[in-house]
Formats: sequence, structure tokens, C-alpha cells
Amino acid sequence: MNPHPALFDQIRARVEREMLDLPDPDRIPLFYEPIYFINRLKGKKIRPLLTVLSGLAVGGTIERVLKPATAIELLHNFSLVHDDIMDNDDTRRGQPTVHVKWDLGTAILAGDGLLGLAYRKLLQSPGEFIERIAKLFTDAMLEICEGQALDKTYESAATISEDKYLEMIGKKTACLISLACEIGAIVGGGEEKDIQNLASFGYKIGMGFQIQDDLLDIFADEQTLGKRVGSDMAMNKKTIVSIRLKAIAPEFDFRNAGMKELREILHEEGIVTQIQLMAEKYFSEAETYLSRLNQNNYTGYLKDLAVYLLKRDK
Amino acid sequence: MNPHPALFDQIRARVEREMLDLPDPDRIPLFYEPIYFINRLKGKKIRPLLTVLSGLAVGGTIERVLKPATAIELLHNFSLVHDDIMDNDDTRRGQPTVHVKWDLGTAILAGDGLLGLAYRKLLQSPGEFIERIAKLFTDAMLEICEGQALDKTYESAATISEDKYLEMIGKKTACLISLACEIGAIVGGGEEKDIQNLASFGYKIGMGFQIQDDLLDIFADEQTLGKRVGSDMAMNKKTIVSIRLKAIAPEFDFRNAGMKELREILHEEGIVTQIQLMAEKYFSEAETYLSRLNQNNYTGYLKDLAVYLLKRDK
Repeated sequence: MNPHPALFDQIRARVEREMLDLPDPDRIPLFYEPIYFINRLKGKKIRPLLTVLSGLAVGGTIERVLKPATAIELLHNFSLVHDDIMDNDDTRRGQPTVHVKWDLGTAILAGDGLLGLAYRKLLQSPGEFIERIAKLFTDAMLEICEGQALDKTYESAATISEDKYLEMIGKKTACLISLACEIGAIVGGGEEKDIQNLASFGYKIGMGFQIQDDLLDIFADEQTLGKRVGSDMAMNKKTIVSIRLKAIAPEFDFRNAGMKELREILHEEGIVTQIQLMAEKYFSEAETYLSRLNQNNYTGYLKDLAVYLLKRDK
Repeated sequence: MNPHPALFDQIRARVEREMLDLPDPDRIPLFYEPIYFINRLKGKKIRPLLTVLSGLAVGGTIERVLKPATAIELLHNFSLVHDDIMDNDDTRRGQPTVHVKWDLGTAILAGDGLLGLAYRKLLQSPGEFIERIAKLFTDAMLEICEGQALDKTYESAATISEDKYLEMIGKKTACLISLACEIGAIVGGGEEKDIQNLASFGYKIGMGFQIQDDLLDIFADEQTLGKRVGSDMAMNKKTIVSIRLKAIAPEFDFRNAGMKELREILHEEGIVTQIQLMAEKYFSEAETYLSRLNQNNYTGYLKDLAVYLLKRDK
């Protein structure tokens, strides 16, 4: 399902073009080829879509928000490349990860380069907003690193509290999706209360999104997902699924159980339903923030995008 | 030798304090402890010294340039942590490198964090200069990555031209030292021609500095240097030493020769003298740029710092 394909595809296409606005890769292939490779992969482009739609919702134009929207996607790609190294992931978006296709050093450098390019693109935003959005962008970048550090820390724990889990995904996932909406609203010229409402909208979307992601790690079709199913479980990641399962069936050995067995127990124990309800609650809270804005076509599209995310299968 | 110890030590101490202005490490130890570890190591602090002195030389105050000076040192530390992984270096400043003391993932994250903290500090500079210096900072960060990529690329070459070598060290080393001076001059409120002269001064210093570094890799005392002697040669790095040696004695197997034998042939063939002269030429060109500024105590200190760097043994 792809709501409003014309507008969404148009935004995606413009972001994709911006992402390939790079120095000639032949000059320093070891640096630019993996960056091209990553930036060329088709993704959902949820974050830049949210930035652009947030900017439009408060009365801005695509032109003004396109650069910061692209910067957000580049920041996201930076974190994927480095996280994939740390998490030993070998596929992403149906392709080998950079450290597998090239090597470790090249992947570290490609991630660094993506971050530098993200800042370069962000700093091409309208000048009057640069100081504010660069500070927010930097805070979010550090928060993503904190989230990844918590994620790695918790790998060696038997289980963690749901509060700790929510803090972790807030940093790892929700803060960037919140930033996407907030920066769109700022650069789109929104009023302060609209900026805050869109930031909160994004945060709630991000929380719901990550909770769903935890479910998709187990229930998605591997081909559709574009990465290995069960990889969170294999790395002993603390997901809402593993935490709920541990609470209900502490003896269940999910690292050695088959996927089929795991899926069955999660259904039987009602865990799937509980988690789906939890994700829906976040999406519904997101909508409440969105409803506080003056409604227009673009707030409508933001709502549709939220619904699309809630129903996604990858 | 440490010229003007009172002023220089005062600047170093203030930068060191700024570098430890970090979130509570206990909150997320896996992320902040290695960052504390790196930022606490004593270093020469050449780059922030250059930033502060450049700012003072054009009439600025320490207060105004302290944050960007610290940002430059954090950017430098970011590149050290990631480069040490890629180059398999196990000691730095007399201590184990982060990927050795902790592990690979922690070191990647620590480098990322240092870069984020560098931007955070940079964005605390006086507001009127932020857009300009953030763009320069980002360009330099990408150029450092390009330089590292060229460095890695050339490891598999038998030799490279001196032009390629000079391009590589320009990106890897000189561009950051140039940035240090340029940003100091900008935030210190310098006139455009002084900013450009200080940027060029820094670039030339940086070139001379790296050429010396190549010699120190072979001739320094390991204890004083704080890292393994001969590590460039061991990694088949293209240094001015290896290039000159290859040109004169193509059959000499420097990877399997002992350090003593290597040192002897470099002296006998006059390569050491040639390279020292080459470094001196860059330092002398640097002085020419410096002489174009109105002279004051601080331009004098910059000159003294350049002399100190030329005579350094680590």
C-alpha cells in the first residue's frame, strides 16, 4: 500500500536525486563507491517524507525543506552502516551490507562520509534556521549513538525492564523520526506550537514504528523485509517481543527454538495481539498531536502516512 | 621544548576542561567511558593552540575561540579513533587504542560520539559565524575521510608519485591544521585577508608537520612517540620516506629489513637530509604567510609554535 503515490513518489524521487549529488566517485572510489551504493538503494524514505510533509503542512514549500529532508535520510544511512557492522548484519534492503561487500575499514569510512554529507546537506538549508536545526540534528545524532550503546549493553542482559526498553527505542529510533518532523516544521516556517506538536507526532510514530519493527523481525517475510528474519533474536537483542516472552515463559529458549515454534508461542500467549495494541496506542497518540494543527491536505497526508506505517509488512 | 609555557599551558588547560564537559558517563558507560578515556589523554593540543593563537593574533579573545578550538581537537580525536581501527594500531599516546582496550563496536561508536560532540562544541561558537564555520568544518571532515581513503588505497600500490603523496597528506593532515587557524581567525573577528593568510599558514605548517611525522615513524624513540615505531612501514603506507627510498633503492626490502638497517640506508643515501629540507621549506613558506599579518605578541607566539613543531621529537 502506498497512499498518494503521485505526491509521495515525487518527494521520494527528489530526495533520491539529492542523495546522489556527490563528488565524482572515480576520484576516490574507495570512499565514494560504497556511499553511492548505499544512497542508491531503494528505501521507504519515511523520514524525508515526514520532513517534507511536515514542512508543507505548516505552509512551507518542497524547495525549502528538501535539503534538510535529505540530510535526515543521510543521517539514517550513516547509522545503518555503522550499526550493521556492530550487529554483524550481512544484508540490508535486500543487498549485502557495506562491510560484507567491501570490508570493515571501508564501511567505517563510508558511515563517516555519510554523516559528513548529511551535515553538508543540512547546512544548505535556508540560513536563518541553520543554527537551530544544526543543534537539533547534532543532539539527535548523539542520542542515536546513545541508543545504539544501550542496545549493545543490553545484549548481555537476561532481560530488561520495559522502561529501559522504551528509553532505548526512544533514543535509537523515535528521536530521529521526531527530528524529521520537527526540522520540516521549523524550515517550513511553522509556528512554535505547530513545531512542538509535529515533533511529538514524530516521536510517537517512531515509538510505534520500532515496536512494529520488533514484531516484523519475527513475522515478516524475509524476501519482503530485505534482511534476515530473526536477527534480533539471534543477537539476543532486547525487543518488546523478547521482554514480553521472558515475562510469560521465562524457560522458553528462544535462541535455540525454531521460528515456527517461536511464532506459535507468541500467538498462543497473546503476545502478538498485546504488542500490536501497544503500537496502535502510539499511533493513536501521534494522531492526537497531529489533530492540534490547522488541518489541510498535508496534515491529511501525514495521517495517511501514519496509517500506512501501522499496516506495513516491511 | 615548550615555548611560552605559561600561555600555552593555560590554553591547553582550558581546552582540556572543555573536552571533559560531557554527559555523566555512568548513565551510558559503554558510550561515554571510552570518550572520557580518549579526551583525558595528554596530547600536544597543537590544533586548538593554533586556533586560539590565530584568534588572538587578529584581535579576538580566548573566550570567543575556545569552543571552536575544542571542536577541532574533538574532530581530530574522532579521526584518530577510527583510523586506529582501520590501520590496526594498538597504541596511541602511550595507551592502548579504544578498539584494543574495549572492542571494535565500542570504538566505532566512540569515534561517532566524538564527532557529534565536536559539532556540539562548534555550534556553541558565537552565532554570527556558525553557518560559515560549520560549512568549513564539514568540508574539512569530509576531506580527512578522503585522505584516509587515499591512504588505504595506496597501501596496495608498490609506490606512488610525490604529487599523489602531497595530495593525500594535504587532505589527511594539512587541511585540519589549516582549518584550525582559519576558524580561529574567523571567530576572532579577523579581516578576510588575515583569515586567508592564516589558513595558508596552517596548511603549510600541516604539510611540514606530516612530512616530519613520516620521518618520526622511523627515527623517533618509541617511548617518547607514544606509539609503535615503524608502524607506517609495517602497513606498507606510502610516506615520503618510502617513496624516496623506493626511487633510490628499488630493491631494498624495507618491510623485512630491521629498523637499524633502514635508518642506516636512509642516512647514507641522504634521504633524511632531503626530507628535513623539504619539511623546512614548508615551515618557511608558512612563515611568509604569517609575516603578511600585522605583527603582535600572538603572531610571535604562532611563529614560535611553528619553530617548536619543526624541532619536535614526537
